[in-house]
Amino acid sequence: MSGPTGGKSGENSTISLPGHQAQLGVQAPLRLDSGAELSNFTVAYQTYGQLNADKSNAILVCHALTGDQFIAESHPMTGKPGWWEIMVGPGKPLDTDRYFIICVNIIGGCMGTIGPKEINPANGKPWALDFPVITVGDMVRAQTLLLDQLEIEQLFCVVGGSMGGMQVLEWAAKYPERVFSAVPIATTAKHSAQNIAFHEVGRQAIMADPDWCDGQYLSFGKVPSRGLSIARMAAHITYLSDMALLRKFGRRLQDRDSVSYGFDADFQVESYLRHQGSTFVDRFDANSYLYITRAMDYFDLVSEYNGVLANAFKDTKTRFCVFSFTSDWLYPTEESRLIVRALNAVAANVSFVEIDSDAGHDAFLVDEPEFEKLLAGFLEGAAEHRGLPRVVKQ
Amino acid sequence: MSGPTGGKSGENSTISLPGHQAQLGVQAPLRLDSGAELSNFTVAYQTYGQLNADKSNAILVCHALTGDQFIAESHPMTGKPGWWEIMVGPGKPLDTDRYFIICVNIIGGCMGTIGPKEINPANGKPWALDFPVITVGDMVRAQTLLLDQLEIEQLFCVVGGSMGGMQVLEWAAKYPERVFSAVPIATTAKHSAQNIAFHEVGRQAIMADPDWCDGQYLSFGKVPSRGLSIARMAAHITYLSDMALLRKFGRRLQDRDSVSYGFDADFQVESYLRHQGSTFVDRFDANSYLYITRAMDYFDLVSEYNGVLANAFKDTKTRFCVFSFTSDWLYPTEESRLIVRALNAVAANVSFVEIDSDAGHDAFLVDEPEFEKLLAGFLEGAAEHRGLPRVVKQ
Repeated sequence: MSGPTGGKSGENSTISLPGHQAQLGVQAPLRLDSGAELSNFTVAYQTYGQLNADKSNAILVCHALTGDQFIAESHPMTGKPGWWEIMVGPGKPLDTDRYFIICVNIIGGCMGTIGPKEINPANGKPWALDFPVITVGDMVRAQTLLLDQLEIEQLFCVVGGSMGGMQVLEWAAKYPERVFSAVPIATTAKHSAQNIAFHEVGRQAIMADPDWCDGQYLSFGKVPSRGLSIARMAAHITYLSDMALLRKFGRRLQDRDSVSYGFDADFQVESYLRHQGSTFVDRFDANSYLYITRAMDYFDLVSEYNGVLANAFKDTKTRFCVFSFTSDWLYPTEESRLIVRALNAVAANVSFVEIDSDAGHDAFLVDEPEFEKLLAGFLEGAAEHRGLPRVVKQ
Repeated sequence: MSGPTGGKSGENSTISLPGHQAQLGVQAPLRLDSGAELSNFTVAYQTYGQLNADKSNAILVCHALTGDQFIAESHPMTGKPGWWEIMVGPGKPLDTDRYFIICVNIIGGCMGTIGPKEINPANGKPWALDFPVITVGDMVRAQTLLLDQLEIEQLFCVVGGSMGGMQVLEWAAKYPERVFSAVPIATTAKHSAQNIAFHEVGRQAIMADPDWCDGQYLSFGKVPSRGLSIARMAAHITYLSDMALLRKFGRRLQDRDSVSYGFDADFQVESYLRHQGSTFVDRFDANSYLYITRAMDYFDLVSEYNGVLANAFKDTKTRFCVFSFTSDWLYPTEESRLIVRALNAVAANVSFVEIDSDAGHDAFLVDEPEFEKLLAGFLEGAAEHRGLPRVVKQ
């Protein structure tokens, strides 16, 4: 199998993505949890800052479901700021004067890394549902191949929120010697029934769209925009707290003084959601959405370690800092506590912070000064232990 | 306008509904909040028990979004037990040996009362989107016409959960002299931004289905099953708590020992949701779903009384008992507290009970012994004040 870069197929065919690409699985294929194999496939990634001489200052940022590798620069498709510009840059918590930041578009994604919208060399068409189902474990295993190629033996830190946090946990569990420190944010060690339920609604919305064409929409020159948009709308509600929606919109009307007695977007919150749905369609692939949500639903580090999460972290030397947010109801603080308890049970080096925020799950993406300060502080402390100077030495 | 009964149109055309029907708006039309008028329209309702000689023992049960008038008997379309058989019957809290129970299918509904699937006499086709948008106020106003026809001056009690609770609040606010006691359950005085957001996802899912045909699906012999099913799935998640989903399903697999690495319903919760969606389509009209969710979104008793909910209940003599459930995140206890505070502010006769339950919003529909006992107790106390004997006297 070979996976051409994202520029060659489907709805993004006119976009040439900036950044790095690596060919992985060339010597030996990547074996997936499903048993399928990926060989000679492209992984797109982005870096910020400079790798130091002994390659000890690399921070891997793992992105969330609909995130990508464009953390700290304008997004090449939307023109919007990078999704974590608040955190990543000179003098910021993930200080690019000090650290070398890497972010890899996950396998199964749609921003240049192999995924269902890329071309299947077996038939010259987009993979669509012939792409193998992937897991969070597979995403991380692909990332280890990239680090091998970059000759980075140990990451100074792996950090990520939401599905990014699942990857952090997977890294720490499976490759502890490669992870000096780890920061799982607003995440969980296993997807709950409610989490799966919301994802299933999104998948059914996509698959119900006649333009989905049993997954073959790219070959037919179509896009299941309505289904993908509805999936995004439903998911987006789970990213915000009730309070955040009240603060942002309440029951305020959109461009009118009184209700229309009709089915227009009378309320601002309706208009906002519709906008979230329709703009998402322009930048994301519907099949990728199916694959990535599936990977998240499959994530269950607890059962993988026979019901005892602590076993995942036995003898770990990694330094952990776990963050949760008070108003996050998608992955509530209690889920983080279970992770922390497991780490405590193996006497791991762990600190835990619950940030007081009304922003909901998305709090890790927005300006939360206390979160930024504490994350910066944890990284500084870890950097001292690791002996990293304040400015990169080549 | 005339509204034939539910048996004459659309997908339910083979079903002849049992129960009562009344022609309302015959002398004068019902004026709706939108300014539109309904005249000579059918309202379907069901009764249990016997009305006493002085017509003082009537309890009006107001149904929720997808409920109907078949409270305490097999549903004529699904064959399932009535939705409140737990509560309504001889010796039960709503004791049919003592009280006369009435439940009216709301206007805009699809079980025999006028709504978008009934025939528009202007063109002989189903109303579809030509049906006027209705409000909770309109639903209640239609119910007052029925009570006029039945010559019931004052209800002994108005009781209802969820949207039924909104009708209870509307009754108590607008027709206090007709309501001896009122029991709003698991409800809110105004729909929140999050409530509106979830409804909007459902509406968009329906309207995105090509079989919706701009609302004209019945005229084309179609049903937007996929869209309506997705709307139901999304809504259903909000009716259950995270804990209820964990208890019922957790991460258990459906009819298999290991995950399929595919997009089948691997997890029981997926299978359950799909089932909820597909069975709903058989008994509910998609346009009714649009109209009723819209009515709920428009409900805002607070702004109707200029931001002071207490004004809605000024000088009320009605006896209130407000119920909420600890794990209800759709209309959380805090919403009930706001109602209770407003009632307290006008020195109303009100008691408030938060029931400890992990069943989520749907707790009012399932077997919660404490809830049943306390509701029975409140009704008994009110019945004594009203002078109702233990058994109906004709």
